Amino acid sequence: MSLNRVPNREDLENIADRLNGVVHRTPVLTSETLNRISGATLFFKCENFQKVGAFKFRGASNALLSLSEEERSKGIATHSSGNHGQAVALAARTAGVPAYIVVPESAPEIKKKAIAGYGASITYCAPTLIARETTLEAVVADTGATFVHAYDNYDVIGGQATAAKELIEDSPKLDIIMAPVGGGGLLGGTALVTKYYSEGTTVIAAEPSGADDAYRSLKAGKIIPSVNPNTLADGLLTSLGTRNFPILQELVAEILLVNDDEMIAAMRLIWERMKIIVEPSCAIPLAAVLKHPDQFAGKKVGIILSGGNVDLEKLPF
Amino acid sequence: MSLNRVPNREDLENIADRLNGVVHRTPVLTSETLNRISGATLFFKCENFQKVGAFKFRGASNALLSLSEEERSKGIATHSSGNHGQAVALAARTAGVPAYIVVPESAPEIKKKAIAGYGASITYCAPTLIARETTLEAVVADTGATFVHAYDNYDVIGGQATAAKELIEDSPKLDIIMAPVGGGGLLGGTALVTKYYSEGTTVIAAEPSGADDAYRSLKAGKIIPSVNPNTLADGLLTSLGTRNFPILQELVAEILLVNDDEMIAAMRLIWERMKIIVEPSCAIPLAAVLKHPDQFAGKKVGIILSGGNVDLEKLPF
Repeated sequence: MSLNRVPNREDLENIADRLNGVVHRTPVLTSETLNRISGATLFFKCENFQKVGAFKFRGASNALLSLSEEERSKGIATHSSGNHGQAVALAARTAGVPAYIVVPESAPEIKKKAIAGYGASITYCAPTLIARETTLEAVVADTGATFVHAYDNYDVIGGQATAAKELIEDSPKLDIIMAPVGGGGLLGGTALVTKYYSEGTTVIAAEPSGADDAYRSLKAGKIIPSVNPNTLADGLLTSLGTRNFPILQELVAEILLVNDDEMIAAMRLIWERMKIIVEPSCAIPLAAVLKHPDQFAGKKVGIILSGGNVDLEKLPF
Repeated sequence: MSLNRVPNREDLENIADRLNGVVHRTPVLTSETLNRISGATLFFKCENFQKVGAFKFRGASNALLSLSEEERSKGIATHSSGNHGQAVALAARTAGVPAYIVVPESAPEIKKKAIAGYGASITYCAPTLIARETTLEAVVADTGATFVHAYDNYDVIGGQATAAKELIEDSPKLDIIMAPVGGGGLLGGTALVTKYYSEGTTVIAAEPSGADDAYRSLKAGKIIPSVNPNTLADGLLTSLGTRNFPILQELVAEILLVNDDEMIAAMRLIWERMKIIVEPSCAIPLAAVLKHPDQFAGKKVGIILSGGNVDLEKLPF
């Protein structure tokens, strides 16, 4: 049954059971070189190796599997130009139900192809939030499918939480857990799981300074929407969700900002030293660690690498 | 003690014990997408995650650790423009002994820096094999260091063998094990380990058609040197070693050739679908699998991904 409250410990336990065997249990990698450079001991949870190449598959799968049989048979719908659309499409295909994805015409061809490749039914719309929402409403009215928001949804938050849960299980006791923040789905889930399964561990987020709405929202004590964000971290452009914000307020100690040059340098370090492919958004937490060595020196730090979907034709270096 | 014969089962056991804790036990990764594309079930042994980013660290470490205390104290020497030089340098630094590397002036700056970064003493020479060998002889005469050839050396062959040994231990029983072939260090070690630890498993090599000296050598029954090789697989330009060739003759079932376009397409597939960074040489076995689907369909195939050292400024796509 879909959740209508912040997931508690029992919910998180049920979600982990539900996703067991559905999502990849991704590896936790370490790097002696990055430990030496940072002065910290880093544990990287590799969601770039997750199905569809990003943690988003966890939340989409949990949302789908939380539906009743009847709801599920009508399928799920969302609007997305990126990883969430692919995640919803693959989760639906895996369960053998329809997926309806509203995609802005302006989305990159490569993402349109990926969504179509998972067998989803695509409806194109103008590249505005209003057009996305009204088109989605029409699709939902027409099909009876259930809308699964990319992050402002308790089942999605609970699904994303399983990445940090595995990280906690597969690492020594961590002093700090870090995740990037866009809408707050991954960060919210990470914070909840840390509260219940790793008491005493501090949750720190990292955000691009060119899209610092979460940073400003936490300072202001209310959601300040993202307006004209300017960053290459295309996974982190969205504003915080209303379900996500209170979780972050209660459980996230701090949000650190990094600029795009720092992000790209950290991304390149991960590529060159760890030999794994991560997308720009994914490198933000490491960039924050490298920017504030005194804060992290000697600490055991878990970092969620959120995804690895980059266009190899358009690398920032 | 350094080996003066082809490593037998007991030697391979001793070498694995010796390298335990010295080299990374790299993960074996799988990819549902690549299984679907190839029709085979593939097990990738990720030596791109090995120290210095390539399997070469295994052979260099074993060669060093096989020396007597007295030999070891005088250090080790080699000539190399690539991964082997870095491997010898790091193995020596780890053991606290000197490394002397003869490097052609023409080697890429990035590789010179990496070798120097591991604290090795570098001597530059003209970019010919003769210059490399005569310069090395002078360095050895001067320092008393022991020369460790990149592949034509039983301790190096035995060290490289540990990659396939771990692959066999960490996978279900494999029908086929594949490795790329350059000088025959990795392939020779792989073939020996397969003989002793995975009876009935076929060893198949893959080689660039622009540097097909191993293919031609096996056909001819004698070593045919590589002359003017033409391929982007810069790790596979060398000719077979005299110690390597007889092992390959006895134990390698077949060498499959792939051209550079096929290699680069396979490299890109690995980057995009597995989200890991591999160098061009490393993609040759997968390219061969994709080129000959009938030969591999339904088979369990172990593939040694040999390394991940690429210049991100000069990608072939």
